[in-house]
Amino acid sequence: MKLSQIATILQTEFNANDVEISGMNTLKDANANEVSFVANAKYIKDIKDTNAAAVIISADLVKHLPKTSVALVVPHSYIAMAQLSKYFAPVIEDETLAAAIVGEGTKVSPKAELAKGAVIGKNCTILAHVYIGTNVRIGDNTVIYPNATVYRDCVIGNDCMIHANSVIGSDGFGFATNNRGEHTKIYQNGNVVLEDDVEIGSNTSIDRAVFGSTRVKKGSRIDNLVQVGHNCEIGEYSVMAAQVGLAGSTTLGRNVVMGGQSASAGHLSVAPFTTIAGKGGISNDIKESGKTFAGFPLMEHRAWLKLQVKIARLLK
Amino acid sequence: MKLSQIATILQTEFNANDVEISGMNTLKDANANEVSFVANAKYIKDIKDTNAAAVIISADLVKHLPKTSVALVVPHSYIAMAQLSKYFAPVIEDETLAAAIVGEGTKVSPKAELAKGAVIGKNCTILAHVYIGTNVRIGDNTVIYPNATVYRDCVIGNDCMIHANSVIGSDGFGFATNNRGEHTKIYQNGNVVLEDDVEIGSNTSIDRAVFGSTRVKKGSRIDNLVQVGHNCEIGEYSVMAAQVGLAGSTTLGRNVVMGGQSASAGHLSVAPFTTIAGKGGISNDIKESGKTFAGFPLMEHRAWLKLQVKIARLLK
Amino acid sequence: MKLSQIATILQTEFNANDVEISGMNTLKDANANEVSFVANAKYIKDIKDTNAAAVIISADLVKHLPKTSVALVVPHSYIAMAQLSKYFAPVIEDETLAAAIVGEGTKVSPKAELAKGAVIGKNCTILAHVYIGTNVRIGDNTVIYPNATVYRDCVIGNDCMIHANSVIGSDGFGFATNNRGEHTKIYQNGNVVLEDDVEIGSNTSIDRAVFGSTRVKKGSRIDNLVQVGHNCEIGEYSVMAAQVGLAGSTTLGRNVVMGGQSASAGHLSVAPFTTIAGKGGISNDIKESGKTFAGFPLMEHRAWLKLQVKIARLLK
Repeated sequence: MKLSQIATILQTEFNANDVEISGMNTLKDANANEVSFVANAKYIKDIKDTNAAAVIISADLVKHLPKTSVALVVPHSYIAMAQLSKYFAPVIEDETLAAAIVGEGTKVSPKAELAKGAVIGKNCTILAHVYIGTNVRIGDNTVIYPNATVYRDCVIGNDCMIHANSVIGSDGFGFATNNRGEHTKIYQNGNVVLEDDVEIGSNTSIDRAVFGSTRVKKGSRIDNLVQVGHNCEIGEYSVMAAQVGLAGSTTLGRNVVMGGQSASAGHLSVAPFTTIAGKGGISNDIKESGKTFAGFPLMEHRAWLKLQVKIARLLK
Repeated sequence: MKLSQIATILQTEFNANDVEISGMNTLKDANANEVSFVANAKYIKDIKDTNAAAVIISADLVKHLPKTSVALVVPHSYIAMAQLSKYFAPVIEDETLAAAIVGEGTKVSPKAELAKGAVIGKNCTILAHVYIGTNVRIGDNTVIYPNATVYRDCVIGNDCMIHANSVIGSDGFGFATNNRGEHTKIYQNGNVVLEDDVEIGSNTSIDRAVFGSTRVKKGSRIDNLVQVGHNCEIGEYSVMAAQVGLAGSTTLGRNVVMGGQSASAGHLSVAPFTTIAGKGGISNDIKESGKTFAGFPLMEHRAWLKLQVKIARLLK
Repeated sequence: MKLSQIATILQTEFNANDVEISGMNTLKDANANEVSFVANAKYIKDIKDTNAAAVIISADLVKHLPKTSVALVVPHSYIAMAQLSKYFAPVIEDETLAAAIVGEGTKVSPKAELAKGAVIGKNCTILAHVYIGTNVRIGDNTVIYPNATVYRDCVIGNDCMIHANSVIGSDGFGFATNNRGEHTKIYQNGNVVLEDDVEIGSNTSIDRAVFGSTRVKKGSRIDNLVQVGHNCEIGEYSVMAAQVGLAGSTTLGRNVVMGGQSASAGHLSVAPFTTIAGKGGISNDIKESGKTFAGFPLMEHRAWLKLQVKIARLLK
């Protein structure tokens, strides 16, 4: 799409050199063929170094923009970004088995659906009613149980196991809300990457990134009914028990253990070898490695135990 | 079914005019061709105004019944209602694509299943392994991702998106328990209505109503792994983050926001523009609009923050 | 597999009589053709009475072993057990409808998948996109809604109902972790048994046992998005509301009621007729029947209410 067309979509002025735009991205990651946006004061510091071809921006921030980026000035930059995201969402395709490339020794149920452009490695097993979307890539020796769904563009490593009815790559929960309380969808044009030796339980949802990738690193173990929000990163060998929930853009270090029904707010970072007890709720970064936490609000497990003693005393 | 047959099923006396009965309903909503019941003291006030052809009722309450309704006197009215509900449950059908009506520009995967009597509008996309039950109606421009299930009789609006492996219209969790602790299923003969511009995440369950409809209003956004119980009503533009749970018959006003893993007990009403923090638990009606709550038991967010300070002090 | 081959796999010495080994099991349940293991001090007491053909064991515990069992001495018995479990995992098969045995009056959607060796009773309804694995047995009058998955070897009784997208028999969450933090999968070679008159909601996961069976007893009612861990036992007529989670090896007595989003840690026992309020968390055995509990940590409901009064006072 031409940058001039984007200006028309956003109903903003345009009198710069016209270029072909391939997609949208964050200020940090956008290249000279991508459009970015600034919608949050927190990211103002990223404006001056952006390589984006153009930035959706409010009038008061234009002064921070480098000369290499065109300003697309709008009254509500987050809503404008949401509106534009739709134009970069690929058309949903659903084509047949014949179009996929399948390695030696791989068994695909005739009742599975492999979309166009999917590439599956050797010695995999894809059971009935599995859906593998457009351009998905899967390594060797991976097993996908019935009724699991892998959305387009996702990447799955070697030696993975995805249990029945799990969903890899559904849309992250993203929308911009106007001052009448109405929501505009932010199309989630990123993907999910599962590295090697990852096991995902049944009925688990791992959302695709809005830009870039949601990533589950090597050797992780994710149980049933777990929620992983868009743009999260799960560290190597991490363990997430059943019904854990991670909001978007949270990063777990390696060997983090999260007990059943524990959760984290979004945009947080959890140090390696952290353990969170069942039902615990993370609402701040955890910076020091190797500790155990419990409760909501979260506290060190030892403090939590002490608190329970105090509460018991209070009751007497 | 004839009213006399119903009396036979319920093993109760019958010496009134016989009429054809089309279904069951609440005291308030039943019409002159429906049977109702009273099983809870809370609803005694509704007896005198009912239009029901007949009411399943205990002997002591018959005196409140208007003359226009036949009394079906039983020892345990809730169990009797459950027993009768089975007779109004439609036979489960599973017929082929050919019988569905599909609008112009709509793409249906040959691996999807559209049951008899389904009607789908224009420019929809129905992906592989989706199940659309008998008599489902779907508007225009709606996308349903793989392995989603829509049970019979549900209604889905225009511009909706249902992500993979979600379930619209599974049975509400209803049963009557006798004094030996055994349960009799209450067949859930209502439906689910999603209005226009509703987005449902992956692995979410929205249960059908026992009578009438579970309703998700225009512009709502529901994330992954969410539970919406039977007969709930979700207000316009409401937002439910991942793993939220609503028990049956709860009503959210417009623009209510529920954080991840928060929940509500059943039969409650939440005022418009209310925000519930993650993991919060609603156990009473919320009557004033625009406030933010947290914790379980729920309190105003400000009080909850204060409580955490007190608890921190207690620990010193 | 020969015992000598197992010794080779585990890289341990072997100079005993060679026998054919049919599988693995616990010290208590292993027979003279099975291999067992001891990986937890808690189970040392079971060593001396085991009937296992051989036991994977650390050098210091060999002295407790009866002469009828061969010692397979390894440095890390739990990891060795995990490594061996893979060799007893059956090959994943996916064969066609024709090979299943289906009783009179049973309707199976042509879009369902019945694997080889499945046996289904009379008057069942199996809807589209259901997957019934190898050797599954199903009784009479059972209904399985679309996109549900039943893994191999599971047993489902008469008069059951499984709602859409639920999973019966996915792998329990089992692995052994070495001192570099890497995990080895413990193959889950047991099954799930649902007894008669069990109803399972939508998007629920019931994991198969590592050895033996995960069991849901007669007349139980399990709602949507519920997690039942491997080797749990749910008592007759128990009720689990939406989003409840049970970790592995927990036993509920009959008529236990668990409110929405409540949970239990693993390896616990809950007395009959216990009620757990919504969001409550069980972390110890409940020995006395008929009580109601709430909160996390769990306390009697009356104490929990009192605590809330104290907390309200604290806030003033």
